[in-house]
Amino acid sequence: VCIISVTDEGEFALIRRIVARLGDSRDLLLGPGDDAAVIAAPDGRVVATTDLMVEGRHFRRDWSTAYDVGRKAAASNLADVVAMGARPTAILVGLAAPASLELDWVDGLADGLRDECALVGAVVAGGDIVRSERLTIAITALGDLEGRRPVTRSGACPGDRVVVAGWPGRAAAGLALLEAGHVDHPLVEAHRRPHPLYASGLVLAARDHATAMIDTSDGLLADLEHIARASAVRIEIRAVDLPVDPAIVAAGELLGVDPFVWIATGGDDHCFVATVARDANPDLPGIGEVTAMGAGETPTASFSDRERPTSGGHEHFRS
Amino acid sequence: VCIISVTDEGEFALIRRIVARLGDSRDLLLGPGDDAAVIAAPDGRVVATTDLMVEGRHFRRDWSTAYDVGRKAAASNLADVVAMGARPTAILVGLAAPASLELDWVDGLADGLRDECALVGAVVAGGDIVRSERLTIAITALGDLEGRRPVTRSGACPGDRVVVAGWPGRAAAGLALLEAGHVDHPLVEAHRRPHPLYASGLVLAARDHATAMIDTSDGLLADLEHIARASAVRIEIRAVDLPVDPAIVAAGELLGVDPFVWIATGGDDHCFVATVARDANPDLPGIGEVTAMGAGETPTASFSDRERPTSGGHEHFRS
Repeated sequence: VCIISVTDEGEFALIRRIVARLGDSRDLLLGPGDDAAVIAAPDGRVVATTDLMVEGRHFRRDWSTAYDVGRKAAASNLADVVAMGARPTAILVGLAAPASLELDWVDGLADGLRDECALVGAVVAGGDIVRSERLTIAITALGDLEGRRPVTRSGACPGDRVVVAGWPGRAAAGLALLEAGHVDHPLVEAHRRPHPLYASGLVLAARDHATAMIDTSDGLLADLEHIARASAVRIEIRAVDLPVDPAIVAAGELLGVDPFVWIATGGDDHCFVATVARDANPDLPGIGEVTAMGAGETPTASFSDRERPTSGGHEHFRS
Repeated sequence: VCIISVTDEGEFALIRRIVARLGDSRDLLLGPGDDAAVIAAPDGRVVATTDLMVEGRHFRRDWSTAYDVGRKAAASNLADVVAMGARPTAILVGLAAPASLELDWVDGLADGLRDECALVGAVVAGGDIVRSERLTIAITALGDLEGRRPVTRSGACPGDRVVVAGWPGRAAAGLALLEAGHVDHPLVEAHRRPHPLYASGLVLAARDHATAMIDTSDGLLADLEHIARASAVRIEIRAVDLPVDPAIVAAGELLGVDPFVWIATGGDDHCFVATVARDANPDLPGIGEVTAMGAGETPTASFSDRERPTSGGHEHFRS
């Protein structure tokens, strides 16, 4: 392990070091090194989202490598762009780092950011590095709508079917395994680094004309409630139709936990959950339906065949 | 003072509270509340820059109000967009806040961000709030080039004249006054809140066809050296032609400091320093010239009529 700290390199040398590790793309018209980057926005609109990750709250350096943190930080923002139905083009990175941070860690972070971006053809376009006692990573992701309407949370209509791309609950199960000391369990990887199915999210937007979409960061049920409230509808999910990763079931047995709690309420998986018109792509396996609000009813998401989990799904290692 | 802390409101309620204070613009096609914002990018390219501000390093809550911090955080990013020759359209805001932070402070920050953005017709398009022991603000600013070439640091040519919009050294003088206990001196305001001359920067780009431009954040001489290195030229400044705020001279007498040190090396003023072709707008008062590098010479910025300040200009209250 190289223990040269970030203070041994000046700010400008450190930035040059990081930039040398980053990739390039045809969307990056002017990359790092000037007052600002210039990124292609061929649609004439740009999709933009920002997220912060704070050490001790969103990640732990003893639980995740720098590379994992980079992958996760990029993924959570790229997934937000895809959940709008947009193709990610670039991210910008703010890093607040303690003076004692090893250069190896910064290298790993940059590599993780670069590799996650490469999955969708995006690139690190710029950033800022400052000193702080608390290691904090701020990511902004940009994307291009390619002529499509943005897929908001507010477009779900009564009669729409609900579909999901991904396996909700894996990150929460992985975190529970970590906390219980099962550091080598394969599912722990799902906490360290989510695997958003970016291509599936884009297909839901572009081919299946999703009426609403979100990526699961607060948990399947909570995120469906975001759609329900924004769309003023009710959403009924069939628990029996949810995709279940067999590893989650095994983890539940290991820890004596009902895995359904993770699936229904675990966050940070960045699965794409969408509503689609009833006649859109009948091959898509549905997990539920959108229904109208009756008189006096409130917008909500619930299960038609199970009680709402009442405990255990609280993901305390988050904001 | 309202002492209700941010923990008393949930994350979603807090976001609603902040969003209610923000402005709107025709560039904001989809504002806060979804997975991402959608912002107009009529040029087909988007300019993007990001910066972090950490409490204790970039601001102090006992020295600056929340409103000042919001103005300053927005200004430093909006100035970067203008320094590229682009019209700012929107900012995104990441806030990492300790649980004890007062709601009043968050309100003031939001108001400051909104009001600084309003100076250039930009708007707060989205953001993220997380908890952290260390108050940290991450801003990303976006802008539109309106069909122009980006004004980079690398376009300065031998024979170009150097021009400046703004009064360099005011923020450094204000900080020195604060540190010396002169908390009520009018120049202290220049540290708390920079006043970038956005319109002048845009005129330098659009009408005067600036060949290179930067906003002063590291200090006039250091930022001119960024241009010199990127353009592979030498830059000679005439100290006698620099704009001098009379208040800086008075502050220098008060503190027994040569004010030239602040003017030449003080950061955080976000003045726009540009190079323009020799025949561009002869009414622009020049402060110096761009010259070619001779054999064996290195790119540098220096004064033709003064020694380079050797001390005192170091701005230690920065990253």
